[in-house]
Amino acid sequence: MPYVNIKVTDENVTKEQKQALIQGTTQLLVDVLNKNPATTFVVIDEVNTDNWGIGFDQVTTLRQLAHT
Amino acid sequence: MPYVNIKVTDENVTKEQKQALIQGTTQLLVDVLNKNPATTFVVIDEVNTDNWGIGFDQVTTLRQLAHT
Amino acid sequence: MPYVNIKVTDENVTKEQKQALIQGTTQLLVDVLNKNPATTFVVIDEVNTDNWGIGFDQVTTLRQLAHT
Amino acid sequence: MPYVNIKVTDENVTKEQKQALIQGTTQLLVDVLNKNPATTFVVIDEVNTDNWGIGFDQVTTLRQLAHT
Amino acid sequence: MPYVNIKVTDENVTKEQKQALIQGTTQLLVDVLNKNPATTFVVIDEVNTDNWGIGFDQVTTLRQLAHT
Amino acid sequence: MPYVNIKVTDENVTKEQKQALIQGTTQLLVDVLNKNPATTFVVIDEVNTDNWGIGFDQVTTLRQLAHT
Repeated sequence: MPYVNIKVTDENVTKEQKQALIQGTTQLLVDVLNKNPATTFVVIDEVNTDNWGIGFDQVTTLRQLAHT
Repeated sequence: MPYVNIKVTDENVTKEQKQALIQGTTQLLVDVLNKNPATTFVVIDEVNTDNWGIGFDQVTTLRQLAHT
Repeated sequence: MPYVNIKVTDENVTKEQKQALIQGTTQLLVDVLNKNPATTFVVIDEVNTDNWGIGFDQVTTLRQLAHT
Repeated sequence: MPYVNIKVTDENVTKEQKQALIQGTTQLLVDVLNKNPATTFVVIDEVNTDNWGIGFDQVTTLRQLAHT
Repeated sequence: MPYVNIKVTDENVTKEQKQALIQGTTQLLVDVLNKNPATTFVVIDEVNTDNWGIGFDQVTTLRQLAHT
Repeated sequence: MPYVNIKVTDENVTKEQKQALIQGTTQLLVDVLNKNPATTFVVIDEVNTDNWGIGFDQVTTLRQLAHT
């Protein structure tokens, strides 16, 4: 029954990493709450770095600052 | 006042199907809860099949298995 | 696979109305997108009228104005 | 058309503060994107501090540490 | 701690407008609830106008009607 | 930067289980995507079993059937 939504910035998350997130999250819900994997959804949203703000700034800006 | 979010995998949902989902959902809220269509939002999110997991697997994998 | 989230104000939605919303939404996804009901989630969130704003106002205020 | 969802911990947010959040958010969308307030939704979710984690910890724990 | 999700239709929102939405929302949460900007997330989702329905219609249709 | 939302039915999830979900999810994002725990949010929503539908039925009904 669980529905898990993982929002991350779209910074080249690979297919294998997505599989690892799905696997790990589903296993966690089995281990902690004994949920049925067959009815456990994990949905990953990848958000453009212009569209994610933290501390007043867009992540795009924060990344640029981090590389200067 | 209702806000409905429909998340489905991005497997070629047509414009007409989206209209049918919007129409049907709005009508349901009118029929069941007597809501005002003019302030009823229906938002459809289409999710990449790599990004949707069920039963430990990405839907991409499940689709491939279903076609082998 | 679909996940549907229905947000409405918490204005005495009955158990039967919730069942009707779940039934109707699931049937719609079967009819329009041929989805499998066994893996179709419908989650209803009921939101306090103080916590829902439209046109600058809380729904609580709008309801009071409507009854004066 | 905008839908804004504000999630905060349920730490005694007053009705007036909720009105201020609704008012300010709606005005921001008018000012920045020229959106119509009559079809701008702002929904505030208040989350129990046991249910919100940051840096491995529940906010309940972080609050207790902050007061020791 | 706040997490704010702003959903708007994908009608050419510029990078500067996104920055203004992030800035304004974060400042609002500082002013109203004294929240820490460093742990305030603002995430903007841009939704295709075929995927957003209001009053039974897709926004794409509403926009076309408005221009006829 | 990640924001993770875990929705489960409100069937007596304990404080310790919530901590385990927060801990496990945060660690997963560190391990898989090398994310910073200090800016990783995990929010758990507990949904009434009348409000969660799967396969046309409310979970309340499914639970009753399972116990008959």
